Amino acid sequence: MDEKYMKKALELALLGEGHTSPNPLVGAVIVKDGKIIAQGYHEKYGREHAERNALKNCLEDPEGAEMYVTLEPCCHYGKQPPCTDAIIRAGIKKVYVGSDDPNPKVSGGGIKILKNHGISVETGVLKDECDKINEIFMHYIKEKQPFIALKYAMTLDGKISTKSGDSKWISNEKSREHVHKLRKKYSSILVGINTVIADDPMLNCRIEKGVDPVRIICDSSLKISPYTNIVKSAKDIPTIIAYCNENEEKANLLKESGIELIKVGKTKNGIDLKELFTEIGQTGIDSVLVEGGAMIHASLLEGNLVDRVYAYIAPKIIGGRKAAGPIGGSGIEKMSRALVLSDTERKEFDGDIFISGRVKRKE
Amino acid sequence: MDEKYMKKALELALLGEGHTSPNPLVGAVIVKDGKIIAQGYHEKYGREHAERNALKNCLEDPEGAEMYVTLEPCCHYGKQPPCTDAIIRAGIKKVYVGSDDPNPKVSGGGIKILKNHGISVETGVLKDECDKINEIFMHYIKEKQPFIALKYAMTLDGKISTKSGDSKWISNEKSREHVHKLRKKYSSILVGINTVIADDPMLNCRIEKGVDPVRIICDSSLKISPYTNIVKSAKDIPTIIAYCNENEEKANLLKESGIELIKVGKTKNGIDLKELFTEIGQTGIDSVLVEGGAMIHASLLEGNLVDRVYAYIAPKIIGGRKAAGPIGGSGIEKMSRALVLSDTERKEFDGDIFISGRVKRKE
Repeated sequence: MDEKYMKKALELALLGEGHTSPNPLVGAVIVKDGKIIAQGYHEKYGREHAERNALKNCLEDPEGAEMYVTLEPCCHYGKQPPCTDAIIRAGIKKVYVGSDDPNPKVSGGGIKILKNHGISVETGVLKDECDKINEIFMHYIKEKQPFIALKYAMTLDGKISTKSGDSKWISNEKSREHVHKLRKKYSSILVGINTVIADDPMLNCRIEKGVDPVRIICDSSLKISPYTNIVKSAKDIPTIIAYCNENEEKANLLKESGIELIKVGKTKNGIDLKELFTEIGQTGIDSVLVEGGAMIHASLLEGNLVDRVYAYIAPKIIGGRKAAGPIGGSGIEKMSRALVLSDTERKEFDGDIFISGRVKRKE
Repeated sequence: MDEKYMKKALELALLGEGHTSPNPLVGAVIVKDGKIIAQGYHEKYGREHAERNALKNCLEDPEGAEMYVTLEPCCHYGKQPPCTDAIIRAGIKKVYVGSDDPNPKVSGGGIKILKNHGISVETGVLKDECDKINEIFMHYIKEKQPFIALKYAMTLDGKISTKSGDSKWISNEKSREHVHKLRKKYSSILVGINTVIADDPMLNCRIEKGVDPVRIICDSSLKISPYTNIVKSAKDIPTIIAYCNENEEKANLLKESGIELIKVGKTKNGIDLKELFTEIGQTGIDSVLVEGGAMIHASLLEGNLVDRVYAYIAPKIIGGRKAAGPIGGSGIEKMSRALVLSDTERKEFDGDIFISGRVKRKE
């Protein structure tokens, strides 16, 4: 076993980012006589799985070779025939597996079939790294709810805008570029109507080979102007508006612009986000990147609806008791009840600090 | 020239931290035939300078040796005779210098004297590192004002306490230990009366070989209780209370407890900090570590009185529109006017992030 091959498989898996949802990212490498003879990854939802792509790409006969694959090979018919069949038929001698299949119905099944056919299997190779690239998939398949991430940029004194609402720019260009990489990971992006009014954003993914996430606007009274970039581009980029209060005329106008409307209930903090997430989860949206503002973030926090936080911190100071912080609402009373991020990761972008970590939902 | 010797001299210089104020930290190493034959540092204000300490410690004759010293050797009589004399007399052949003497009256003088005596001199060796360890000294000697640093610990969503005022604990134990290292660097520490009321702190330096900074409390109406830790320990740890409004009885009681009282003017934000800093600067206090709260920080920011910021950021989320951020007051209006930190430095303490950077005072 050589971890370098699993690292290569991980790199390959990430090439599918933005295209496989709600399928997982998977990469596979086939090694014979200490040499990579094939590589493949799951390129797009509905297409061949990584294992089949690798087998298809073999430079020589895979008979007797070893396969490194980031996720347990499937053993059931879905959009594609089972990968275990292909592996057995190709004469692969040994399979190294990263993540287990998170689907309780099939987990371990693929490995068992391989073993029954005399193929040696080693599991848990770089398991943490393999699990991490599919945290969205794992969550979605287990919880049947989208994975929710909260993203914001703030100053070193904890502000997302000055007291007059100016936020251009808190973070630097390199941090803002990185946001587009996050958007590629998520199948949808969500903001409140106040963010649309303040910034008139496009909320698209502006990087090479990027994929625009579905845009979701929380706009309980359908206040959005038909002249915003969001409405004007809704025929090109899938857009959902979640609302509570009927306004037939405005609703019709928005529908004609290509927007999908979802009516949900109201809570004390505005739109019932839990209901909204359940609804969009059923349509195949596996993840939501929530980009503000402070009220929406507070609703998420209070609704116990956060799985990950991404914070960009710029080395700038603006002060102001009334300047908004990233999370409004009423907040937590005691420090001992604070949400604590785990598996935190840090990066630096030209002096800005990027911190990300997982949040465990409270039971 | 070998930078490793200057690095050694820098390490030595730092051994004097907390003891040399308002003198600089200086380290010196003497090298002969590629071997360190002596090392020394400025150990305590009023005692021998680093160069003389090194010469005193020589394991063999320094005739013909090279000296690495982090700061230009002095050439005038102060509390000690000029180091240049000792270097010349010892027969040192070459001197490598880190920082220039920041005192415009003597800068370059020591180097000139050495050269006049046929000693070869190379300046600017690891200059940035050498300058950095004496940023307080450099500022104080040039500006005749204490160097002011602002320190706070906040959550990842920019709060220094919950909405109910709970702040125990935002940062972890390792971060809180590091605060005591900062306290050792500064000759005084300043907090507002609200911090004393809320936390009843000792504000001392609890590390090995630590030195307690002078404690300064901003308490405009002399509200401090005689039963606080500050007042009770004022006979052991030098303590200043800055106030505005006369209250003879309370003033006498505090003086009897060993507290020094300084009366200063009032501004819209409370105590006139600029006046206070000028006054304590004249008594030899070269630096102030300001540890809150939000109102005092705002006064500093608005008064253009910040030279450095130290921020500890814990990977915790508490939310709350009304929970305090590190800097209150009215704040800056436009992002383009934000204070931007330079030369930022980052560390990690068991998951907490520590960010520090210089602030250039506005002209």
